[in-house]
Amino acid sequence: MNLERNARLKVVLIDTRNPLNIGAAARAMSNFGFFELRLVSPYDVAFREAVSAVGAADVVKSAAVYPDVASAVRDCSLVVGATGLGHRQMQHPLHRLEKAGRLIRRHLESANAALLFGSEKFGLSNSDVAHCHWLAHIPTRPDHDSMNLAQAVAVCLYELIRHPSAARRLPEPAEAATGEEVQRFTQLLEDLLQVSGYTDYDLAKNGSDKTHRLVRRLHLRARDASVWTGMLRQILWKIRNP
Amino acid sequence: MNLERNARLKVVLIDTRNPLNIGAAARAMSNFGFFELRLVSPYDVAFREAVSAVGAADVVKSAAVYPDVASAVRDCSLVVGATGLGHRQMQHPLHRLEKAGRLIRRHLESANAALLFGSEKFGLSNSDVAHCHWLAHIPTRPDHDSMNLAQAVAVCLYELIRHPSAARRLPEPAEAATGEEVQRFTQLLEDLLQVSGYTDYDLAKNGSDKTHRLVRRLHLRARDASVWTGMLRQILWKIRNP
Repeated sequence: MNLERNARLKVVLIDTRNPLNIGAAARAMSNFGFFELRLVSPYDVAFREAVSAVGAADVVKSAAVYPDVASAVRDCSLVVGATGLGHRQMQHPLHRLEKAGRLIRRHLESANAALLFGSEKFGLSNSDVAHCHWLAHIPTRPDHDSMNLAQAVAVCLYELIRHPSAARRLPEPAEAATGEEVQRFTQLLEDLLQVSGYTDYDLAKNGSDKTHRLVRRLHLRARDASVWTGMLRQILWKIRNP
Repeated sequence: MNLERNARLKVVLIDTRNPLNIGAAARAMSNFGFFELRLVSPYDVAFREAVSAVGAADVVKSAAVYPDVASAVRDCSLVVGATGLGHRQMQHPLHRLEKAGRLIRRHLESANAALLFGSEKFGLSNSDVAHCHWLAHIPTRPDHDSMNLAQAVAVCLYELIRHPSAARRLPEPAEAATGEEVQRFTQLLEDLLQVSGYTDYDLAKNGSDKTHRLVRRLHLRARDASVWTGMLRQILWKIRNP
């Protein structure tokens, strides 16, 4: 998470009616490492007291209030409006969030950007949109594209911190069982099958290959393999010592 | 949006305390085209009456209630738990959401999968996690990784419908101005510069190239170009007819 880059993004909520939504948006910001919240004429001026969202306090406390959009984006060289598809007729450039995220991230490498969200009920107004270089569209279902405000904020910010190559930088997986451990397990299983009279696999023919493949497909972890072999050993002992 | 594939995903909310969160999660599901909500022992049995989230009614109405996780995931061949990093010590495989989304999408091509979300306060319990093949982790800030329940649902579902190549399938951009329109604009600009005595560009030398490049960089749209040329024409007329 690149907090230095994130700090160049200003999240601007315009005409927000419900202070709980301000808190919920602030929580999503904090979750994803964005801290600069700007509010343009929030409906409830006492929003700071009304906010109860977990972990949102710091972001809300430092939020700045502006009388209009122009002053809220004054220091931003890129202004993007988050919107449903309703604004398509406005002839404003529109990018799906996947692409919008890439463009915004690139801009944030060196300069400030603002991401605008309109009111819960009406979204961005035409005059809000006029401040935007372009619009970002979360790819919702056309039949139901009105998102909850804070959920829209969360999804947009997730796209910004999302890392395409993150899958390659996963925490180390739990250690896999070694071939020896798997072999020990397989041998015990075969012993068990034999003493218990299981005849579907003919171990003298290709049955042993089958058990090997069967066990391989378990993708046993080291820790689990020793537990399993202990269990099998005990079961085997019980059969041999009834 | 592949609704057939989406239909194979079951969103499972476990021990949800606040029915408003059920409604908010249902709204996110509807936004992203997922409709099968399963509730394991919700705290408020009257949740259907309490839900007020916009557009969530259908999803909530058809939600099924289960007494335990096992019965809620009975028809699913992949069970994934959404979690913060708190469960890492549990030796359960953990994938960042970027990768988790890819794995779940692939599974949904042919089979059912369940995505589990724990209670608002405690997340997934150890016994919930025991039902999971692996865990999905939304890459939140380690210092504040507790997300709002419905926001977590929204972000996970967005990752599932997200399309890496969507940027290439954008709605048609507004029509760009033709070379002729741009040329007309440029000519008017040069006329204006000349009559107004602007001398920074020497039009007789390479100044004309400069104005051309300057105008090109505006990336004028067809509709706007005609407005601009109208404006310049009027200004030019005024200068010539003071």
